Amino acid sequence: MNKPVIASAQDAALLHYGRPDSGWRLRLYTVIFEADTVAGRRFDLLLIGAILASIAVVMLESVHAIAARQEWLFDALEWGFTLLFTAEYLARLACVRRPLRYATSFFGIIDLLSVLPTYLALFMPEVHALLDVRILRLLRIFRILKLTLYVQEYQMLTAAVAASRRKIMVFLSMVLMVVLVMGTLMYVIEGPQHGFTSIPKAMYWAIVTMTTVGYGDMTPHTDLGKAIASMMMLLGWGVLAVPTGIVTAEMTTQRLTRAVTTRTCHQCLSEGHEPDAAYCKDCGARLPPYQHS
Amino acid sequence: MNKPVIASAQDAALLHYGRPDSGWRLRLYTVIFEADTVAGRRFDLLLIGAILASIAVVMLESVHAIAARQEWLFDALEWGFTLLFTAEYLARLACVRRPLRYATSFFGIIDLLSVLPTYLALFMPEVHALLDVRILRLLRIFRILKLTLYVQEYQMLTAAVAASRRKIMVFLSMVLMVVLVMGTLMYVIEGPQHGFTSIPKAMYWAIVTMTTVGYGDMTPHTDLGKAIASMMMLLGWGVLAVPTGIVTAEMTTQRLTRAVTTRTCHQCLSEGHEPDAAYCKDCGARLPPYQHS
Amino acid sequence: MNKPVIASAQDAALLHYGRPDSGWRLRLYTVIFEADTVAGRRFDLLLIGAILASIAVVMLESVHAIAARQEWLFDALEWGFTLLFTAEYLARLACVRRPLRYATSFFGIIDLLSVLPTYLALFMPEVHALLDVRILRLLRIFRILKLTLYVQEYQMLTAAVAASRRKIMVFLSMVLMVVLVMGTLMYVIEGPQHGFTSIPKAMYWAIVTMTTVGYGDMTPHTDLGKAIASMMMLLGWGVLAVPTGIVTAEMTTQRLTRAVTTRTCHQCLSEGHEPDAAYCKDCGARLPPYQHS
Amino acid sequence: MNKPVIASAQDAALLHYGRPDSGWRLRLYTVIFEADTVAGRRFDLLLIGAILASIAVVMLESVHAIAARQEWLFDALEWGFTLLFTAEYLARLACVRRPLRYATSFFGIIDLLSVLPTYLALFMPEVHALLDVRILRLLRIFRILKLTLYVQEYQMLTAAVAASRRKIMVFLSMVLMVVLVMGTLMYVIEGPQHGFTSIPKAMYWAIVTMTTVGYGDMTPHTDLGKAIASMMMLLGWGVLAVPTGIVTAEMTTQRLTRAVTTRTCHQCLSEGHEPDAAYCKDCGARLPPYQHS
Repeated sequence: MNKPVIASAQDAALLHYGRPDSGWRLRLYTVIFEADTVAGRRFDLLLIGAILASIAVVMLESVHAIAARQEWLFDALEWGFTLLFTAEYLARLACVRRPLRYATSFFGIIDLLSVLPTYLALFMPEVHALLDVRILRLLRIFRILKLTLYVQEYQMLTAAVAASRRKIMVFLSMVLMVVLVMGTLMYVIEGPQHGFTSIPKAMYWAIVTMTTVGYGDMTPHTDLGKAIASMMMLLGWGVLAVPTGIVTAEMTTQRLTRAVTTRTCHQCLSEGHEPDAAYCKDCGARLPPYQHS
Repeated sequence: MNKPVIASAQDAALLHYGRPDSGWRLRLYTVIFEADTVAGRRFDLLLIGAILASIAVVMLESVHAIAARQEWLFDALEWGFTLLFTAEYLARLACVRRPLRYATSFFGIIDLLSVLPTYLALFMPEVHALLDVRILRLLRIFRILKLTLYVQEYQMLTAAVAASRRKIMVFLSMVLMVVLVMGTLMYVIEGPQHGFTSIPKAMYWAIVTMTTVGYGDMTPHTDLGKAIASMMMLLGWGVLAVPTGIVTAEMTTQRLTRAVTTRTCHQCLSEGHEPDAAYCKDCGARLPPYQHS
Repeated sequence: MNKPVIASAQDAALLHYGRPDSGWRLRLYTVIFEADTVAGRRFDLLLIGAILASIAVVMLESVHAIAARQEWLFDALEWGFTLLFTAEYLARLACVRRPLRYATSFFGIIDLLSVLPTYLALFMPEVHALLDVRILRLLRIFRILKLTLYVQEYQMLTAAVAASRRKIMVFLSMVLMVVLVMGTLMYVIEGPQHGFTSIPKAMYWAIVTMTTVGYGDMTPHTDLGKAIASMMMLLGWGVLAVPTGIVTAEMTTQRLTRAVTTRTCHQCLSEGHEPDAAYCKDCGARLPPYQHS
Repeated sequence: MNKPVIASAQDAALLHYGRPDSGWRLRLYTVIFEADTVAGRRFDLLLIGAILASIAVVMLESVHAIAARQEWLFDALEWGFTLLFTAEYLARLACVRRPLRYATSFFGIIDLLSVLPTYLALFMPEVHALLDVRILRLLRIFRILKLTLYVQEYQMLTAAVAASRRKIMVFLSMVLMVVLVMGTLMYVIEGPQHGFTSIPKAMYWAIVTMTTVGYGDMTPHTDLGKAIASMMMLLGWGVLAVPTGIVTAEMTTQRLTRAVTTRTCHQCLSEGHEPDAAYCKDCGARLPPYQHS
C-alpha cells in the first residue's frame, strides 16, 4: 500500500517536540504523547473524560438558575480541573526535549489559555473583575479543541480540506460576490424604511437568504424586492438541488436505457459488449447479433 | 447472487424465539410470524391496517375540537384496538417456544407498552389520573414502530447506518465541537441582553443556524455577532454545497474535455474505442496499443 | 441505439386517440397533435404563448390593486382566451378518431375545467356567485399543466420517478414515522401552553423543523424540548450532509492516496496497472517494479 | 492533454479588441491585458487591491453611523478611486486596436458605469440630486464584477453552466409550475384573511417554503393549508434528500455485498482480479474467462 500522507499526532510529537532518551522523562513521554502502552491509552481516556467533564461544568455554570444555587460546588470543581490541567501542562513541558516549541504550538497555547482564567482570579483580581466572566468561560471552552488530537479522522479531514482549499476559496468568493451585488440591489430597492439600512446589513440578509436559513428578522416588503429575493432563494437552493438532480438523473436514465446486455463472445466468453459492437474487443471474434430483451 | 447479509424478520423470529413443531401452536406461528401462506399474508395486512387505524384514532383524539364531541366513540374505538392488540400479544407469547425472549425483546416491550394505558385506566385509576394523558397517547403512538418489521428496506437501512456508524459519530462530534465553540463565542459577543443567556442556549441557537433551520426566535443583534453568524450559515450551507459542487464540477469538466479520444482503428477508421480494448469492435482488426495524449 | 422506452406525446396521441385517415380532419390533426410540419410547430408555439399569457392575466387579476382599475380589460382578455381555448378543445375533439377517449383523458379534463369558469358566469350565474372566485382562478391556472406535453424531459423525469417509486415511498414512510414519534414526544414535553395543542399540530412542527424550513410560528420553549428539537434538526440536516460528506470524503481520500500510477507494460504498452501487480493483465508480461512518485 | 476549450481572458482580449504592434501602445497593452511580465502581474494585483478597497469604502459609506462622522474622508477616497479607475479605463481604450469594441463590451460598460456617479455629482448636480444615492452606490459596487477576469475557475464554471443550460431551464420551469399550482391552491385555501392576498404573493410564499428558507412572514393557518404546506416542504427537502440517499444507499449496499469476487487464478490461487483482465497480475498465468455469478 502507498505510505499514508497524514502523520498521526504521535509522529508529529516525535518530529516537532523531541522524544527524550531515557529515565523518568521517557516514561512520562510514553504515557502522555504515545498510545502504545496500557498506561498511555489509559492516560488518553482519562484526559478525554476530564476535558468533557470540565466542559460540562462550564456549560452548566453559565445557566444562571443552576449556578446561583451551587456556586461553591462549581468553584471547587473548576479549581479541581484547573489543577489537573496545569499538572498535565507542566508534565508535557517537563518531558519533551524542546519545551519552548510545545509552549508556542497551537495545543500548547490552548493548554495555557484554558487554565488562565482561574489563576487570574487568584493573582490579579482587578483584571479578573474587569474581564467579562463570559470571556473567561470561552477560554475554558477552548479545552475541547484538545480532543482533535485523539481522533484520526480529524487529521484526514483537515488534509482533505487543505488539498481542496483553492476550490473552496473560489466557491466562497463567488458566493460573496453574489451576496454583495444582490445585497446592494436589495438595499436600493427596499431601502432603510424596510430594515435595509446599510450595505453590510443588506449583505447579512442576503447570506441569511441564500443559505436558506431565513430567520425572518429582515424580509422584503416591496414586490420587486420579493421577486429579487425569490431569485436568490432559488439560487441558494438550486445550487444544492440542480447538481444532485443532474447526477441522479444521469444514473437513473443510464439504468433505464441500459437494459440487460447479456452479450457473450462465443470464443473467449467475455461479456459486457456494447449493443452496437460487431466484434469482440478482447479476442477479435465476430459477435452474434444483438437481440433486445 | 451473493447471499444477503441481512436476515429478514422471519428468520430473526426463527432464530431468537423458536418455532414450534406441530399442532395449533405451529399453525398460529405460521400465520403470525411467517408470510408464506395466504393466511400469513392476510394477517400481516390486517395488522398493518389495524396499527394505522389506531394511530389515526390517537391523533384525532388529541385534537380538542374533535375529541370533545365524540368522546364515547373514541373510548369505544380505543377499547376495541386495545383488545385486538392484547389478543395479538398473547397469541405471540403463546405460540413461540421461548415466550420470555419475545416479552423482553424490543417489539415485545412495544406491544406491552402500547396496550398499557387503557388497562391502567381500568385497574389503577389513581395512577392513570396522575399520569399526563399526553404520555399515555405517546405510548399508544409507539405501535407505529411495529411496522418496521414489514418493510425489508428498513433492515437494509439499519445495516447500512450501523456499518457507517464510526464515520457518522466522527462527523457529529465535529459538528458539536463547532456548535460549542461558536455558540460560546456568540454568548460572549451578544450576551444575555440579546437572548443568549447561557452557553446551552447559545448552542441551541448555533444548531438552529448551522442546520439552516433558522426559526428566528433568537437572532444576532450586534454587528460582530452578525458577522460570526454569517460565517456559521455559510459553513452549514457550504457543507452541503461545496462537495456537491466539487462532484458535479468534476463530472462536467470531464465531459467537456473528454470529447476526442483519438483511438482510431487503422482498418475501418472508426473511433471511440475503450482504452482497454485490444480488438476493434467494428471490424475485428487488432487495435494499436493505447497511448495517452 | 436502444429503442427509447418513453413514448413522446405524439406517439401517445397516435396510440390512444386515433389518427384520422384523410381530409380536413387529417390536416387538423397534423397541425394540433403533430410537430413535423411548419404549421404544426407554429401551432405549438402559439399555444404555449397563449397559455403563458392567460396565466399571467389570471395572476395579475388576483392582485386587487391592479384588478380594481382595469376590470373591463381583464374581463375582455379572459373572454378572448376562453374562446381561444374552447376552439382548440373542440378542434381536438373533432379531429381524433376517438373523441371520447380524449375528453376523459388527463389533458382533456384539464382543457374542459380551464374554460369552465367563464361559461359558468354566463350560463349559471347563481352557481358562479356561490363558488369562490379564487377557486375559479385555480381552475384557470391548471392550464399550465398542458405545457408538460411540450417538454420531453418531463416524460423522462416522470418515468424515472415512477421507476424509483418504491424507494421514494419507503423513504417517505420512514420520515413520517420519525415525524409522528418525535412530534408526539414534543406534544408531551411542550404541551398546549407552548403551542403544541394536538398531535397533528406537533407533527406539522416536526415537518417544519426536519425539512429545515423553520418558520418560527411554533418553537420549543422548554429545555428538554429544545434538546429534542436539536436532535431533529441535526437529523434533517444530517440526512443531507452525511451522505454528501461520505461520498466526497471517499473521492478525496482516493485521490490523495492514489498518487500517479504511471506503470506501463513494456511489452503491450498498456497502462493503469495496480501498484502491487507483478504481471501485465493484458498480455501476461512481467511488469517493472513500482516506484513511488 | 486535450486542448482546453475555454479561452483565458488574455486570449479573449487578443481576439476581440486587437493587440497593437509596437510602441507605447504595445507596452501599455502588455501591462494591462497580459500577465506574462512582472509589470503585467503587478498591475493585476494593484487593480484587484484597488477594486476591493473601493468596494470597502462604498460599503462603509452606506453605514450611517460611520459615514456621518467622516464625510470628507469618504469623499476624498471616492474621488481618488474614481480618478484611478478613469485613468485605467482611458488607458484601456487608448491601447487596444478597436477601442469601440471594448467600450461596448460587458467589462467596458461596467468600467464606465462605475465611475459615472462621481462625475454626475460634478457635472450634472440636478440629475445627481434626483437619483437616489443608493443607486449610485450600486453602480460603484459593480466594480466587483471586474474581478471575474482574474480567476480562471469562473470561466470554467460559466462554461459548465452554459453547457447544462437546457437541464437547468427544464428544472427551473418544473419548480415554477409547482410553485404556481401549489401557490394558487394555498391562495384558495388560506385566502386574504391569512395573508395570501393574491396569486403572486402566494407564489412568493411557495418559493420561500419550497427552498426551505422559511422566513415566517407568511404561514398557513388553516389545517388543510398546513397539510398542503407540509407536502411542499417534504417536496423541497426531498428533492435534496432522496437522490442523495439513493446514491449513497447504492454505494453502501454495493460495498456490503461486493465482498467475494470469485475470480481465482488456477496457478497461484490469488483472488480479486478485475473482470476484464486476461492474465493473472500476480504470476502471469492466463486467467479463465470471467463468468458472472
